[in-house]
Amino acid sequence: MVALANVDPIVFPSGLVWLIGAGPGDRSLLTLQAAQALSVADVIVHDSLLDERILEWRRDGAEVIYAGKRGGRPSPKQADISLLLIDLARDGQRVARLKGGDPFVFGRGGEEALTLARAGVPIRVTPGITAGIGGLAYAGIPLTHRDVNQSVTFVTGHDHTGSMPGAIDWPALATGSQVIILYMAMKHLKHITQSLISGGRCANEPTAIVCRATFPDQQVLETTLGDAAADAKRHKLESPALICVGDTARLRLAIDWKKSMEGHPVRHVHPFSDEAAALWGGKK
Amino acid sequence: MVALANVDPIVFPSGLVWLIGAGPGDRSLLTLQAAQALSVADVIVHDSLLDERILEWRRDGAEVIYAGKRGGRPSPKQADISLLLIDLARDGQRVARLKGGDPFVFGRGGEEALTLARAGVPIRVTPGITAGIGGLAYAGIPLTHRDVNQSVTFVTGHDHTGSMPGAIDWPALATGSQVIILYMAMKHLKHITQSLISGGRCANEPTAIVCRATFPDQQVLETTLGDAAADAKRHKLESPALICVGDTARLRLAIDWKKSMEGHPVRHVHPFSDEAAALWGGKK
Repeated sequence: MVALANVDPIVFPSGLVWLIGAGPGDRSLLTLQAAQALSVADVIVHDSLLDERILEWRRDGAEVIYAGKRGGRPSPKQADISLLLIDLARDGQRVARLKGGDPFVFGRGGEEALTLARAGVPIRVTPGITAGIGGLAYAGIPLTHRDVNQSVTFVTGHDHTGSMPGAIDWPALATGSQVIILYMAMKHLKHITQSLISGGRCANEPTAIVCRATFPDQQVLETTLGDAAADAKRHKLESPALICVGDTARLRLAIDWKKSMEGHPVRHVHPFSDEAAALWGGKK
Repeated sequence: MVALANVDPIVFPSGLVWLIGAGPGDRSLLTLQAAQALSVADVIVHDSLLDERILEWRRDGAEVIYAGKRGGRPSPKQADISLLLIDLARDGQRVARLKGGDPFVFGRGGEEALTLARAGVPIRVTPGITAGIGGLAYAGIPLTHRDVNQSVTFVTGHDHTGSMPGAIDWPALATGSQVIILYMAMKHLKHITQSLISGGRCANEPTAIVCRATFPDQQVLETTLGDAAADAKRHKLESPALICVGDTARLRLAIDWKKSMEGHPVRHVHPFSDEAAALWGGKK
């Protein structure tokens, strides 16, 4: 159990479902509020967490219910999870619903919140650090950088049916989004990268693929938009992964702080120099 | 000072500059890692924090240096802040550089990291919850919702000169981004909303403006893209504010949990019903 002193007290009434973001992986990226709620909850219903040691911070005797995908087994249906949460709440439990990343960013938390609210179950929401921000920070990649971009777009690589999202206007996305962060895009990566290129993106654009983001064994592949799918295959990269398409990725050439902390030599390359362009992607 | 028990220990060596995201406001949205780093730092260099009580969590004797805008006074130049950080690090201090939200999302953290790295100063980065995610969660607005959007774009409403960002392709953004989250957009709101509408966005699209996000006096205005600028003026809304343009905003009609927690009556409206459309924006 985690103990927090001098943090503002929280109130977690019986019958409340508290939707909580667990952050991208590294459990120290949990918020104080989330840690407080977990330390009080009667029951924790969680998805596949990247670091299950987060559950060690529950109170003694708290129940833990797993509601995500495991191995090849079928995952519980979203409707069943929502019904379980309603039942637990109506039973007077203090229910922590723990989801990876942020519950409202590709997390289906909105669906659960809506079902609960319509069933008359009170809810509360604690945002978490989404992998697209936290995972890239650990890879030394800012989402925005002066003179590079004033916008950044998060896109999911598949919809709830597992297909490539049909509602996305890829050519407009390619033109309108200076930096693109792809979630869950490994399955359809070839198609997605081709769609962006045919929509006008440069095939030589710097692209980084981050696997096991924020963990000690985090892996970052530096590639280009055109080579990303083939490189991911060659290096046998596995989901879940985050993909950053854009010139901000190149900042990593100078500020890959995690590698430096681990004692690896620093690359002394100015990320927007000709030398950097020669190293990684031809666009300057 | 905040005390955390059973959290993995951290190492904060002398001469390191640790870039830390303070989150959107509510100090309980600080991460455990950020709280740990703050409780060890010798000196904290901070921007305008929405909740300065975060600084109470520093260790006894830690120095606090303010490096943001205050009142009408000119703010320190970015280059001067970076030089200050370099000096403090070279002096052997453990330097916490605390920034609102996430340091790498419109926070100029990338610039500081790059300057520090090129000066040979070791850095570390702790991501924070960005206001565009955390602030909207407190307004009952998910960034994504099944069948509504598979992408979300963050855009800043002004660049470092204070002008509307010239590099944004507004028509492509209007077409390619299903939900748009505007940061720092109050100054140029009229121009931005007009650009989106002339780029093809529906003037009747649900739009929410969130001021003082995550604070007890948080204020949320429900308007439409076409009326947003005039409504913001009429209600005298002030910066900083977050603006959500998109149908996900409408989920707030059912899941405005913060208002419910405060004892306000719940609106029992299905956010995607005709009734909701009549209440807020005519689309769908």
